[in-house]
Amino acid sequence: MPSTVDLNADLGESFGVWQLGDDEAMLGLVTSANVACGFHAGDPALLLRTCRTAAQRGVAIGAQVSYRDLAGFGRRFIDVDPTDLEAEIIYQIGALQAIAHVAGSGVGYVKPHGALYNTIVGHEEQAAAVAAAVHAVDPALPVLGLPGSAFFAEARRLGLRTVSEAFADRAYRPDGTLVSRREPGAVLHDPHEIAERVAAMVTDGRVTAVDGTVIDVTVESVCVHGDSPGAVRIAKAVRERLEAEPVELASFTGARSETGR
Amino acid sequence: MPSTVDLNADLGESFGVWQLGDDEAMLGLVTSANVACGFHAGDPALLLRTCRTAAQRGVAIGAQVSYRDLAGFGRRFIDVDPTDLEAEIIYQIGALQAIAHVAGSGVGYVKPHGALYNTIVGHEEQAAAVAAAVHAVDPALPVLGLPGSAFFAEARRLGLRTVSEAFADRAYRPDGTLVSRREPGAVLHDPHEIAERVAAMVTDGRVTAVDGTVIDVTVESVCVHGDSPGAVRIAKAVRERLEAEPVELASFTGARSETGR
Amino acid sequence: MPSTVDLNADLGESFGVWQLGDDEAMLGLVTSANVACGFHAGDPALLLRTCRTAAQRGVAIGAQVSYRDLAGFGRRFIDVDPTDLEAEIIYQIGALQAIAHVAGSGVGYVKPHGALYNTIVGHEEQAAAVAAAVHAVDPALPVLGLPGSAFFAEARRLGLRTVSEAFADRAYRPDGTLVSRREPGAVLHDPHEIAERVAAMVTDGRVTAVDGTVIDVTVESVCVHGDSPGAVRIAKAVRERLEAEPVELASFTGARSETGR
Amino acid sequence: MPSTVDLNADLGESFGVWQLGDDEAMLGLVTSANVACGFHAGDPALLLRTCRTAAQRGVAIGAQVSYRDLAGFGRRFIDVDPTDLEAEIIYQIGALQAIAHVAGSGVGYVKPHGALYNTIVGHEEQAAAVAAAVHAVDPALPVLGLPGSAFFAEARRLGLRTVSEAFADRAYRPDGTLVSRREPGAVLHDPHEIAERVAAMVTDGRVTAVDGTVIDVTVESVCVHGDSPGAVRIAKAVRERLEAEPVELASFTGARSETGR
Repeated sequence: MPSTVDLNADLGESFGVWQLGDDEAMLGLVTSANVACGFHAGDPALLLRTCRTAAQRGVAIGAQVSYRDLAGFGRRFIDVDPTDLEAEIIYQIGALQAIAHVAGSGVGYVKPHGALYNTIVGHEEQAAAVAAAVHAVDPALPVLGLPGSAFFAEARRLGLRTVSEAFADRAYRPDGTLVSRREPGAVLHDPHEIAERVAAMVTDGRVTAVDGTVIDVTVESVCVHGDSPGAVRIAKAVRERLEAEPVELASFTGARSETGR
Repeated sequence: MPSTVDLNADLGESFGVWQLGDDEAMLGLVTSANVACGFHAGDPALLLRTCRTAAQRGVAIGAQVSYRDLAGFGRRFIDVDPTDLEAEIIYQIGALQAIAHVAGSGVGYVKPHGALYNTIVGHEEQAAAVAAAVHAVDPALPVLGLPGSAFFAEARRLGLRTVSEAFADRAYRPDGTLVSRREPGAVLHDPHEIAERVAAMVTDGRVTAVDGTVIDVTVESVCVHGDSPGAVRIAKAVRERLEAEPVELASFTGARSETGR
Repeated sequence: MPSTVDLNADLGESFGVWQLGDDEAMLGLVTSANVACGFHAGDPALLLRTCRTAAQRGVAIGAQVSYRDLAGFGRRFIDVDPTDLEAEIIYQIGALQAIAHVAGSGVGYVKPHGALYNTIVGHEEQAAAVAAAVHAVDPALPVLGLPGSAFFAEARRLGLRTVSEAFADRAYRPDGTLVSRREPGAVLHDPHEIAERVAAMVTDGRVTAVDGTVIDVTVESVCVHGDSPGAVRIAKAVRERLEAEPVELASFTGARSETGR
Repeated sequence: MPSTVDLNADLGESFGVWQLGDDEAMLGLVTSANVACGFHAGDPALLLRTCRTAAQRGVAIGAQVSYRDLAGFGRRFIDVDPTDLEAEIIYQIGALQAIAHVAGSGVGYVKPHGALYNTIVGHEEQAAAVAAAVHAVDPALPVLGLPGSAFFAEARRLGLRTVSEAFADRAYRPDGTLVSRREPGAVLHDPHEIAERVAAMVTDGRVTAVDGTVIDVTVESVCVHGDSPGAVRIAKAVRERLEAEPVELASFTGARSETGR
């Protein structure tokens, strides 16, 4: 059983007049904020507000990098040239670094978003581009993502620290991958059930897959959602459940949440 | 007469498939490159290439920040809220900082672009927003701009270093402001005439205004254009003419051009 | 007292993943839908859904044209060249015409949005550009806007029909203009008070200004908002109050709402 | 041998300050202009100028529809949902219809651009979405594209007229598909050779593939490029060569080029 575990969520995903999620509520619950970088969401003024609140609460800030796709919220694969992608990731990390710096914090890690996250599980050229971008900006920046992904392989090859996350509200296949959202039962909804499941993942390193098999999972961070009132309730249940275990809720970057124990 | 003078030009202003200007040629002539930051021009891959060439040639890199306006190339006033503008400037500087860092250099100064440049000559709220953004990112970053502008007043109030530029190919009014591009004779075209004029500005601190008056000008940097073959010829003439004077061509940031003397 | 009055609201203002307003609820209340055209809001798939529902309910569709400004939701003045603006308005109307046609309806009028609406009250060049664009697309298209505006003067000069609107929830100055949103009391909030006020505007052609003066207003259409639960309640109150008067709620375009009397 | 053949080229592909291609020169050579619709290129004012010149010269106007991707010039596959894609195509066609109408012409056909063109050769869902969009806007609109494509199959299923094009400067495989641009010899450069090749394709319906095989081709329209001085020379050579044959150069839409015979 690990001595600490991180709780991460996607934040800063509003854009201009359009609101998404309850950043304020979530920043009272998580230890790491995956803050959008303007390519799938996040206008600069919002990002600055989000980073300021994160800094005040001791929540670590990660650059949630994405394809350039506001209209699709970064959820659609784009067959972007790896050279272009690498530069786009550098650009996004840098933009958030300045925002986070002005907010009194800094970018502590990088987490790919949406379709990019899913694509670089297997797409080696794009995985290499993202890993190279992070390494070029700062080889000390950890990356948060899926264990076993091409992205993690590339990141490790470059010497980057990889931090494995598990999903609080998603069903797993026996091979440790996630059940597709298009399949029934892919997403769990009951806060109590989810909280218990997360506690088991964190304390035992095991989770029950959709076929009933108990499989091993590596959990350095737990990903929760915050884009609906129900999601905030789930995040709260997960946090409270983990607080009952002898594990410290803390960012893997070393930053410490004020609301953490 | 100053011991050194800087030669600056706007670069990195292509976007995707669309080319603008001859960055390669200009980076062999100038000592400072005002590199676009993606808001009026400049896709990340291009910015990285431009910064790499600038780094190789010892040309200083400045963040050429702009309104968010690709369709208008940043040439149209936008009545953006100062709070939003400040965050947008921080975002742009940060993005270019990461790009320049990866290219082996860094952002050495900030120069507003187009309509933003013109607006903050007199618009105090936007001028204050831009100055505050630069200061928040790094109080040691100089700003390049127009002497006597509201922007310079705000920048100095915050303790930022201001670097005064003169325009090689523009006609001046007796009060030291530029003749509007809409008026005849606003833009000079003869490379020889322009080069002589710049030499006089730099060595004597004086220029002849449109009405024949000789006026004083402060010239720490000379702005040349590079967006046409004719513009590159003018830049070349200006550089060669200045090399004939006992003044060193060098960036005001301290970086030194390999092609400088 | 007029025999009919129109009730209009801004719709189709979501974008991608981001939701704004309750189009479904509002399309059960209004007789005219000012549908965004993609420049300040409105992705094509959303616009098609909104137009389909409008068509099903017999709600007239207007093209809510805007500056090109997703980040600012079209609420910021842009000093766009009139030639560019005219072409942008033509483009937007055409895009929505095809969408509305596919939805089984058509574009019945044009209403400028946000900062463009406010700007062309007085900015003659931009007013002329918008009027010329509407006229060029179809001289039979009415324009919905503010009586006394430069836009209406230009529209009439070209022979366009102008339809005057009043604002349900806004305070008026003694000269018939709106109290700025920046001043206290600019926006009314009580559904009952607003409904009574609208009834008086429609039936008597008069409204009480902020200083207590009773002034004349021309009301061919009443503008209600729908971007919050409170706004939907106000729209409902206004509709119900008007249904108690001997005036028919109907679009000025001739299309008839199924939910109208 | 056909009695008429069409010559088409991509036009209207500049954006704001950025220029691409020589529309003026090409509109003196082609009989059909595939005009961009703003999603991969083409600001509205440019589109209006291009359509005005096309109208003056009797060149037919087609809507060159694309993925929403200015940064990538529509050259990158985007895994966009077919429902979204269909609405995006409707939107684009409508926008150009209004522009073309104001220019005194109309949209006479639809041709997909870049990655979308290539994708719907085989991607059935996206092919169906594009075909459905064209059909929904106007079932009388022909589509210009690649014979044997999924797009053509879907278009015909809906009753749309399909117009087969051949590429003037591209090498063919023995199966009638194009040699990939990544392979050597994929693109031909000699104007004389290209012109002779096109003449043979048009008059005999045959072309020599890369392996020396002579294969059958259906050519209702010949696609030429115009984005470089060399490309304009090739287009000119092709036109002049075809004028020497007993075939009329004319748009397949029925519009007639003033410069045609």
